Amino acid sequence: MTARPLAGLHVIECASFVAGPNGGLTLAQLGADVVRIDPLGGGSDHRRWPVAASGESYYWTSLNKAKRSIAIDMRSVPGRELVRALITAPGPDRGILIDNVVGRSWMSHAALAADRSDLIHLRVQGYPDGRPAVDYTVNAEVGIPQLTGSAAGVAPVNHVLPAWDLVTGLTVSTAVLAALDHRNRTGAGAFVELALADVALAGVANLGWLSEVADRGTERPRHGNHLYGSFGVDFACRDGQQVMVVALTEPQWRALREVTGTTAVFAALEAALDADLTQEADRYRLRETIAAILRPWFAARDFAVVSTELEGARVLWGRYTGMKDVVEAQRAGAHPVLAATTLHDGTAAITARSPVRWNGEYGEPGAPPLLGQDTAVVLADLLGLDDAEIGRLAAAGVIAAPS
Amino acid sequence: MTARPLAGLHVIECASFVAGPNGGLTLAQLGADVVRIDPLGGGSDHRRWPVAASGESYYWTSLNKAKRSIAIDMRSVPGRELVRALITAPGPDRGILIDNVVGRSWMSHAALAADRSDLIHLRVQGYPDGRPAVDYTVNAEVGIPQLTGSAAGVAPVNHVLPAWDLVTGLTVSTAVLAALDHRNRTGAGAFVELALADVALAGVANLGWLSEVADRGTERPRHGNHLYGSFGVDFACRDGQQVMVVALTEPQWRALREVTGTTAVFAALEAALDADLTQEADRYRLRETIAAILRPWFAARDFAVVSTELEGARVLWGRYTGMKDVVEAQRAGAHPVLAATTLHDGTAAITARSPVRWNGEYGEPGAPPLLGQDTAVVLADLLGLDDAEIGRLAAAGVIAAPS
Repeated sequence: MTARPLAGLHVIECASFVAGPNGGLTLAQLGADVVRIDPLGGGSDHRRWPVAASGESYYWTSLNKAKRSIAIDMRSVPGRELVRALITAPGPDRGILIDNVVGRSWMSHAALAADRSDLIHLRVQGYPDGRPAVDYTVNAEVGIPQLTGSAAGVAPVNHVLPAWDLVTGLTVSTAVLAALDHRNRTGAGAFVELALADVALAGVANLGWLSEVADRGTERPRHGNHLYGSFGVDFACRDGQQVMVVALTEPQWRALREVTGTTAVFAALEAALDADLTQEADRYRLRETIAAILRPWFAARDFAVVSTELEGARVLWGRYTGMKDVVEAQRAGAHPVLAATTLHDGTAAITARSPVRWNGEYGEPGAPPLLGQDTAVVLADLLGLDDAEIGRLAAAGVIAAPS
Repeated sequence: MTARPLAGLHVIECASFVAGPNGGLTLAQLGADVVRIDPLGGGSDHRRWPVAASGESYYWTSLNKAKRSIAIDMRSVPGRELVRALITAPGPDRGILIDNVVGRSWMSHAALAADRSDLIHLRVQGYPDGRPAVDYTVNAEVGIPQLTGSAAGVAPVNHVLPAWDLVTGLTVSTAVLAALDHRNRTGAGAFVELALADVALAGVANLGWLSEVADRGTERPRHGNHLYGSFGVDFACRDGQQVMVVALTEPQWRALREVTGTTAVFAALEAALDADLTQEADRYRLRETIAAILRPWFAARDFAVVSTELEGARVLWGRYTGMKDVVEAQRAGAHPVLAATTLHDGTAAITARSPVRWNGEYGEPGAPPLLGQDTAVVLADLLGLDDAEIGRLAAAGVIAAPS
């Protein structure tokens, strides 16, 4: 297999922001032809930050690379007809839609399924009743910011990564392919709804966190940078570099004791406190004490030494790295999942391939899109329109004139 | 379609912790028969926190529900033969493996593909070279903790949610189904590797964040709870309840101004500062000023009033909710994606259905597993072993004796 297992599959995407577009990106990088439809001039995410000096959006071009971009006036009847025709085009590898549309009756599932009864229609929502929500509001509502940050803190600490958006995007790609497998076997289509709020609720439930709170009757306390239920925390090296060190398993815990020369200390501590630090529960209970015993070893050594020793001892650890370091490492040839690219304005940028390696190969990251650049080609490819028809649509302002 | 689009598909899972098991859970809740293989007595995640008073793990039972659990002595030759036979069983709906195995030569892809050349083998890794890494180490290495928390802070703030683990799990389920689609069309199997570190690198690159740092040459500053590149931040109500309020789009920004009675204030501010607050970039630049102007409105009202007014005005917002509140809401009938369940020790727990709704239906969450409870049934089902053969394996200690 090449790195393009989904070659030949056509997907229409009418979605904005992170979740839906990330689902489309995932399928596109696996080889599907994902056609993103935007309004003329772009949707509400077209110029979203971060942006280059020219205004071109790093965000939009990153999340929509590897797709074909078409722009259509969806307020016009002929524009709506084009969109519906693209969504419901016949064939076993077509009739797949990802959207996050709210309140467009002409794009309701019933309206679309009237044109293609076996349509696969994946709709991303905020709440399951269709009300809007975004990553930062649903994260607050499942209690994560209240558990984040210093044990002494009381204010919620928002996450920076739109984690639920990313998880939702990958749930979109999973559900589309599950629906496709089902359609291939049975002929039946599906209307699949997926709410960001549900993804977040299921996410915390699946880690057992809601059961724990239900059991204890109280909130889990904040732990700062300590890992919950085991041992893991950050340490500062002599030169100020910081590392995250984790001991989930007994071999990891043994490696950490041995490299820091604390085996006898912890043996004595176990005897004194009637603890068994080979057990995660006891490492977790005594996390502050363990960290305090280990801290001087890190504080006495520069990062270069710490790094070499931890690696040699097979300790599970990572360095707190700035994104600037990630960029420099990429430029120096590290991180093959990343790649250099150039935006349409000429700006150099850093893009990513799919992290999924097929038979040892990362695929190509895919080119950054330019809004509407593929409109004519897609209308010819997928709907069989000829130059004259496409010219008439452009003249009527239903699609942008080819540049 | 029912809520079980993947019914008939068989997947073998030899993975631990979050990523691989979350991929298997996703497929299981979509209807696949996912058989999780553990060593006798359980793997290293079997008792992971949080745990019930009995020691039964909320974590393990949550991430492995809806699967069948079998336990085999994989140090023994007959045990290894059973595992290989399960992985490479013939048939178009079999021959699918999810693992995170390191260093077991008898489970190398080459060894397994010798028995079934069209095997779909999804291997979860820490780093792409096979070295171990976990969510908390890779998150440090892509720079997220350095961007999290108070603008005045300097220490990294770890995330609490194992976001990269969850994203990796959903990438697993996507890749398995992409490989299945490809195998169904071409007959070819695949060895698919997926490293947690690559998922994290691609994740930050796909948001445009690495490009931005490469462009600016400096790290993005910390913003506390402010949303990056637009307007969104937390506010405290008079009674101490906190809300997250977001204005990504112009209509959301207008709704926020209007409900707080600040339209004229912001118009004057725009004139005074030569700003256009209908633009996200200006709302982002002036985020502290906007927040300071809005804050008294929230501080003067109890949450009940704030909630009603924001909802009526269609402001995009969420409440900072503790997990205890989520549990209480579930018990009161909210959150249909969640469900009550009972562990094998009798403890009441809260579980989740798949957030993916098929034709309006959430599926069943699936029963919590009991280690090894399905060993005999699975060996009969998938390998056609009879009672006598299963009895001999139990007597030899290759599988646990049926209880």
